[in-house]
Amino acid sequence: MFEVSTPNAPRPAGHYAQAIVHDRTVYVSGQLAIDPQSGERRLGSIEEQTEQALQNVAAILDAAGSSIRSVLKTTVYVSDIRLWERVNAVYARFFGDHRPARAVVPTRELHYGFQVEIEAVAALKESR
Amino acid sequence: MFEVSTPNAPRPAGHYAQAIVHDRTVYVSGQLAIDPQSGERRLGSIEEQTEQALQNVAAILDAAGSSIRSVLKTTVYVSDIRLWERVNAVYARFFGDHRPARAVVPTRELHYGFQVEIEAVAALKESR
Amino acid sequence: MFEVSTPNAPRPAGHYAQAIVHDRTVYVSGQLAIDPQSGERRLGSIEEQTEQALQNVAAILDAAGSSIRSVLKTTVYVSDIRLWERVNAVYARFFGDHRPARAVVPTRELHYGFQVEIEAVAALKESR
Repeated sequence: MFEVSTPNAPRPAGHYAQAIVHDRTVYVSGQLAIDPQSGERRLGSIEEQTEQALQNVAAILDAAGSSIRSVLKTTVYVSDIRLWERVNAVYARFFGDHRPARAVVPTRELHYGFQVEIEAVAALKESR
Repeated sequence: MFEVSTPNAPRPAGHYAQAIVHDRTVYVSGQLAIDPQSGERRLGSIEEQTEQALQNVAAILDAAGSSIRSVLKTTVYVSDIRLWERVNAVYARFFGDHRPARAVVPTRELHYGFQVEIEAVAALKESR
Repeated sequence: MFEVSTPNAPRPAGHYAQAIVHDRTVYVSGQLAIDPQSGERRLGSIEEQTEQALQNVAAILDAAGSSIRSVLKTTVYVSDIRLWERVNAVYARFFGDHRPARAVVPTRELHYGFQVEIEAVAALKESR
C-alpha cells in the first residue's frame, strides 16, 4: 500500500492523498475542476469542469502506474441531474472506447461551488 | 480486466459497461428500475423500483461469474430518506441471509425521475 | 469472503454487515454517530458526530484484522457542505499522518437526522 503524489494534479486541499494503491488497485480521490499548476478553481462551464476533473484523474492514474484506460469504475457526483447529458458528452469523448462501470449521483452543490466531482477505482497495468 | 455484457440486464444508456471485472472483484454500475427486455423505465412504486434495480444487479453478477450471494458491498442511493424502510424491506427479502456491507445515500432526484439506484462490488466465485 | 461482527461498533440496524472482507480488502458499511454500547443516536455537534462515526469505523477495522492506518479510501457523506471544515478538522486529527484517498459527498439529510456518514475501504495487514 502506498500513496500517490504528483504535481500534475491538484495538491490535496485537505486531509487526503491524491490516490492510494493497494495490491493491483488504485483508489483515486474525488477530483474537482482545479488547475494543477495554479491551484485555481475553474468554475467555468460544466463541460470545462468535467474536462478538468477528468484530466486530474488521468494525471493521478499516470503517476500511479495506471491510466485512464485501466479505470474499473467511476462515481460521478453532479450537483444537478439536468447537467447530466453535458457531463456525459465530455466524459464519453474523454474515455473513448473504454467504458468503465459507473454510478451517477445527484448531490447538493459540491465543495467550493463546483458542479461535478469524479472519483475512480482503477487497475494497475502490472502487479506491484 | 474485462467488461461484462448481458442481455438480461438493461443495455447501458450512456458511456459505461454493466460491470467490469478485475482480479477477483466485480464492479457493477449503478442500476435503475429499467426493464431489461423492453428498455422501459419502471417508474412504479418504490418497492417495484427497488426490486427491478436489484434484479438488474443480480443478472449482471450472474453474467460476470458472480452472484447476489457474493456481493461485498452495495451503495443504495435514494431520492428521499423517508422511503428507506420500504427500500430496505425489499432489499432484505432479496438478499435473504446474505448481508453485504452497505452505505445508504440520500440524493436529489435521480436520473429520469427514479427514486432508487443501486451499485455493487462483488467477489467472483473463483479466481479468474 | 467473510463477515465482520464486533460488539465494539453499533449493531447493524438494517440488512447489512458491519463489514465484509474479500481477498486482502475490507469493505466497511457507512457509519453514523451511534453509540456502540447503548445503541443511542448521538445527534450532538458535527464534531461529536464525526468523531463517533470514525470510532465506529476504527472498531470495525480492528475486528477485521485491519486498522485505521490501513484505510485506502473513505467516502464522507455530509448533509451540508458548509459543515465541511469542521468535519475535516476532526477527521484530520483522527487519521493523524495517514491520509487515505477520499471523496466528499454533500447529500440531503441523512438517515435518522444525522449530518455525517463515513464509509471506508481498507487493506488487511496481512493476506488471509
